[in-house]
Amino acid sequence: MSGVARVSVIGASGYAGAIAAMLVDRHPFFALAHVTARGEAGQRLDDVHPRTRVRLELEAWQPDAQSDVDAALVCWPHGAAAPAVAALRERGVRVVDLSADFRLRDRGVYEDWYGVHGAPGLFGQAVYGLPELHRDAVRGADLVANPGCYPTAALLALAPLARAGLLGDVVIDAKSGVSGAGREPTAGTHYVAADENMTPYKVGRHRHTPEIEQELALQGAPVTISFTPHLVPLAQGELVSCYVAPARPHDPAEVEELYDDAYATEPWVELRTGPPGVLEVRDTNFCRLSVHTDPRTERIMVFAAIDNLWKGAASQAVQNLNLMFGRDEREGLW
Amino acid sequence: MSGVARVSVIGASGYAGAIAAMLVDRHPFFALAHVTARGEAGQRLDDVHPRTRVRLELEAWQPDAQSDVDAALVCWPHGAAAPAVAALRERGVRVVDLSADFRLRDRGVYEDWYGVHGAPGLFGQAVYGLPELHRDAVRGADLVANPGCYPTAALLALAPLARAGLLGDVVIDAKSGVSGAGREPTAGTHYVAADENMTPYKVGRHRHTPEIEQELALQGAPVTISFTPHLVPLAQGELVSCYVAPARPHDPAEVEELYDDAYATEPWVELRTGPPGVLEVRDTNFCRLSVHTDPRTERIMVFAAIDNLWKGAASQAVQNLNLMFGRDEREGLW
Amino acid sequence: MSGVARVSVIGASGYAGAIAAMLVDRHPFFALAHVTARGEAGQRLDDVHPRTRVRLELEAWQPDAQSDVDAALVCWPHGAAAPAVAALRERGVRVVDLSADFRLRDRGVYEDWYGVHGAPGLFGQAVYGLPELHRDAVRGADLVANPGCYPTAALLALAPLARAGLLGDVVIDAKSGVSGAGREPTAGTHYVAADENMTPYKVGRHRHTPEIEQELALQGAPVTISFTPHLVPLAQGELVSCYVAPARPHDPAEVEELYDDAYATEPWVELRTGPPGVLEVRDTNFCRLSVHTDPRTERIMVFAAIDNLWKGAASQAVQNLNLMFGRDEREGLW
Amino acid sequence: MSGVARVSVIGASGYAGAIAAMLVDRHPFFALAHVTARGEAGQRLDDVHPRTRVRLELEAWQPDAQSDVDAALVCWPHGAAAPAVAALRERGVRVVDLSADFRLRDRGVYEDWYGVHGAPGLFGQAVYGLPELHRDAVRGADLVANPGCYPTAALLALAPLARAGLLGDVVIDAKSGVSGAGREPTAGTHYVAADENMTPYKVGRHRHTPEIEQELALQGAPVTISFTPHLVPLAQGELVSCYVAPARPHDPAEVEELYDDAYATEPWVELRTGPPGVLEVRDTNFCRLSVHTDPRTERIMVFAAIDNLWKGAASQAVQNLNLMFGRDEREGLW
Repeated sequence: MSGVARVSVIGASGYAGAIAAMLVDRHPFFALAHVTARGEAGQRLDDVHPRTRVRLELEAWQPDAQSDVDAALVCWPHGAAAPAVAALRERGVRVVDLSADFRLRDRGVYEDWYGVHGAPGLFGQAVYGLPELHRDAVRGADLVANPGCYPTAALLALAPLARAGLLGDVVIDAKSGVSGAGREPTAGTHYVAADENMTPYKVGRHRHTPEIEQELALQGAPVTISFTPHLVPLAQGELVSCYVAPARPHDPAEVEELYDDAYATEPWVELRTGPPGVLEVRDTNFCRLSVHTDPRTERIMVFAAIDNLWKGAASQAVQNLNLMFGRDEREGLW
Repeated sequence: MSGVARVSVIGASGYAGAIAAMLVDRHPFFALAHVTARGEAGQRLDDVHPRTRVRLELEAWQPDAQSDVDAALVCWPHGAAAPAVAALRERGVRVVDLSADFRLRDRGVYEDWYGVHGAPGLFGQAVYGLPELHRDAVRGADLVANPGCYPTAALLALAPLARAGLLGDVVIDAKSGVSGAGREPTAGTHYVAADENMTPYKVGRHRHTPEIEQELALQGAPVTISFTPHLVPLAQGELVSCYVAPARPHDPAEVEELYDDAYATEPWVELRTGPPGVLEVRDTNFCRLSVHTDPRTERIMVFAAIDNLWKGAASQAVQNLNLMFGRDEREGLW
Repeated sequence: MSGVARVSVIGASGYAGAIAAMLVDRHPFFALAHVTARGEAGQRLDDVHPRTRVRLELEAWQPDAQSDVDAALVCWPHGAAAPAVAALRERGVRVVDLSADFRLRDRGVYEDWYGVHGAPGLFGQAVYGLPELHRDAVRGADLVANPGCYPTAALLALAPLARAGLLGDVVIDAKSGVSGAGREPTAGTHYVAADENMTPYKVGRHRHTPEIEQELALQGAPVTISFTPHLVPLAQGELVSCYVAPARPHDPAEVEELYDDAYATEPWVELRTGPPGVLEVRDTNFCRLSVHTDPRTERIMVFAAIDNLWKGAASQAVQNLNLMFGRDEREGLW
Repeated sequence: MSGVARVSVIGASGYAGAIAAMLVDRHPFFALAHVTARGEAGQRLDDVHPRTRVRLELEAWQPDAQSDVDAALVCWPHGAAAPAVAALRERGVRVVDLSADFRLRDRGVYEDWYGVHGAPGLFGQAVYGLPELHRDAVRGADLVANPGCYPTAALLALAPLARAGLLGDVVIDAKSGVSGAGREPTAGTHYVAADENMTPYKVGRHRHTPEIEQELALQGAPVTISFTPHLVPLAQGELVSCYVAPARPHDPAEVEELYDDAYATEPWVELRTGPPGVLEVRDTNFCRLSVHTDPRTERIMVFAAIDNLWKGAASQAVQNLNLMFGRDEREGLW
């Protein structure tokens, strides 16, 4: 490919969209063509999100205005995203969709957890954009469904065990910073409510559950997981603590080897012997993880830390975009 | 007085109102009669504000429903508070008003900074409820205007200098936690916006300015102050840093003596040699302060720390209530 | 009992000791007799811990100086605590020990997890002071082992299931604020290291594990638990998330009833339908918990929030002291 | 210059040193040659400071080992830095010193505030490395004294007024995050002490005072300033609030123009109409500032926000290094 690819960010006024726009804007290969927003159209992005330093003006969403771009990152909520994605695809624009609309493969499961789909004709057409699991498929894709933040961390933590037939009973206790709740001011995101507090939420009914189960099944482990997210008082950062009862006898050395094999050459996964802290991956595309076997309980424990807005959303979208355009997947992210 | 006084908290769903209700509820002499709220009427106060442990149901505001109480703490915003205060006074209810509606003595100044007054007939009828300055007047009062949070700290810091003719040029740099912005979720109170951030706000136009100037003038120092508040990332706590160019030559020992004389026997003022931290007064009615003279600059510096929701609002209201009902002013606050 | 009981706090310069001293000092029945400290002896407690407002001077530890007291709260680290407890018991002083030295009943287990015991003659003589499980035994006790913070929350969460034969496989994911790491400044407790961070620690080897297992076994469920603590960026507060695979078929209604029966009349346990937040119990002796059954996974989930320094240490010690002296167990804690 | 310049970071285990090493390591023109540390020599830098992702091993300090480098950033405390700087200069290494040892021009003033100087032969030989004030001098320099964090913000805020003869009485109220206190764990940097707290410190005696006064005098305003720093609960970020009584009558438009003229083309200064927040410059080399004239008090107020570890230390050192080596001063910092 000669020249530079033009990329839009649709929904750039949210946290993930703003970071996505910043990353595209600073990218050596991509050029930021348009940024859109609903309520804040007409303002410059760096007035709404100073840290981006992106001086582009936010436009209202008009599908035809996007005809001149090569790709778009869609950062709208589920439900609203699907029709926008369809409109972009009709105009030949390659899309990474950050919503949940194209992540699931089973229409019934989607409807159970999310309701009616906004672009049924496209359902099932996307590649699930977790590059560490589906790199080759992403490379050729025109439509990539960017994974949810929790699934990103949980799947990187559990995929090696799933592939090796070791995944028995699974409990996932996940903790996320407040940016995960979105930019909308609510009672729960008020500083005084969130500060010095922590609490479980959506117990037994968080929508990332079927997404994790789908992908574990594709890796060979059709398990029903127990997944419980918690809100913790920090802005960005996500920690996923996975407690696994192994499905078969094994040697601790086998587990260690599985993770070494899976991640030794992955550019964005850092395997460590000690447990990770979320601050270590703040503002990066890294997933940092550790695996432990407990001789007392015979359980395998895996801890994975990511930045929920970066590897859990915006920077992973750019990692996918890099792959879709045949670039080094580290480009513009380091 | 025999028996126990019945007290209502009008506007108990805000931060200050909820704490006021909790303090009245636990008070040995007062009994919490009613708590009111607009949007959350029908809910129990401890469901909205668990930390209060007050099981009373929030009622909609109906003046006649308050006829059976001896006193009320009015925790509504300025403008809205005045008519409610008038309605309560008409029913013989003694009132501590936490809004700004009755703090100023000059109607023109009120209108310049706040606009039209909601109960002009009562304007100028209230005692300014900073007990350390106006204790005797509060004792006999039926209507007390509870001071603003910044004026509380600033006046305790500066009154001794004002009375001694030492107050020359005054710069006040004030810092407050996020609860000072109220419970309404806004872009500025979102955890992700306030966390790890700090910023000046309302530069040159914060409404507590005329209140501080009025009271300093009453103490003998008719000065124009420079007052600038800042938002800092903590929930409760307020620090006021006062930089004073002395109005006349003096000895450092004189300054020290002024503060000792003013505060040695005050139950709620803690004079210290080292500068105060806001955590030291969190969840208390204390104002903690230190005074310093700088031989290099010849400036006097006074630092005062309070909890903006307690001594800056709710607990000071109860301190006033104690005085109005002839009780020990420490009762129920320790 | 007529008159007032004199109580010392041994080791009052740590977080839990300082709060314990404050609570005893404000208690209507107990009088604070002595406070001791090692490094900070000679300073006043309110200079070291301003929030206590306790003006007593910290003394060096001298067993004979304690002969004039009725009871002592020992707030020393495990190992060091046992000989001090022995010295106090020899002088007829009733003791609540906040260390781990007297919590375990099996000497071998103690030595495996903690090493040599410092007062073997007293080993096994203490009552495990979780009043909600052992109230009657605490009432008659002269030596009470105050539970660890995590065991307090975990046992309140799991005891009803243990007693009902419902406790199968147990995973406990626990999260604590930084005060849990103690007052010693370390690389890990530095603000810059802990702020905006969270991380698991002591994976598979936290010393509260055998304590939880011992007490669950006493309630009828001899299980091996998987217990993993995490450090989260807040000062005080602890949340324990328990994931239980039930040991037998059951009805969700049965679970609900178990918790209602267990806690409806407990003064310090708040059972709620929605998950608890740690801020709701900050600076209190309350444990707030919720129980959930997940039809999808058939797992029972219990979440319990406490303040690690209060119900997890200092205020629970006073609750025990109240019981030991025949007082209402709420006295001085509300 | 052909090829790439080799740069060492001396003292890379502190906060500023680690960031400096990271910036040099990622710089297109500079190559990171050595990193040194005392206590942590032998460890890899990314084990001590994971966010740097610098895999170099920390070496013990040996001047001769530095003979193969073109330049060094010295990140040692004042006093210790001077001899190291001298040793490096003797070996022909160009130096940016981040300590205070070479910032002052008057030896007596240095000794009053810091004590004996560690390399008197070099005293007065350095260029004061605030590029916005001394860009040309930095370009030719072999030894640059990197400014203190507070002076950086304060001088950028006040220099335009100083040059225009407008600087009369000056009060600077400064607020810094906890990283400013260094990486050493102390009682004051413990999370539990700093969290939810704020307090003034070193009242009337902070060592950045003479540095600010020296540079203001060089800009034409020999004033005695009142400078008071405060500790606030955030990791990185510094806000300087300057309250100026103008030295002569003037028009508000003149003030605005002065700042436009000074900063319109500065790559690292962002002039805004609204007051800056420190989060807006986090992890960047930007200084963001606003200037306000208050008709009521006739005072000029200037607010400047920087990241104390970046523009206040590490990234400004690299900005200086860029200038010393004839590079674009934005290189490697964007």
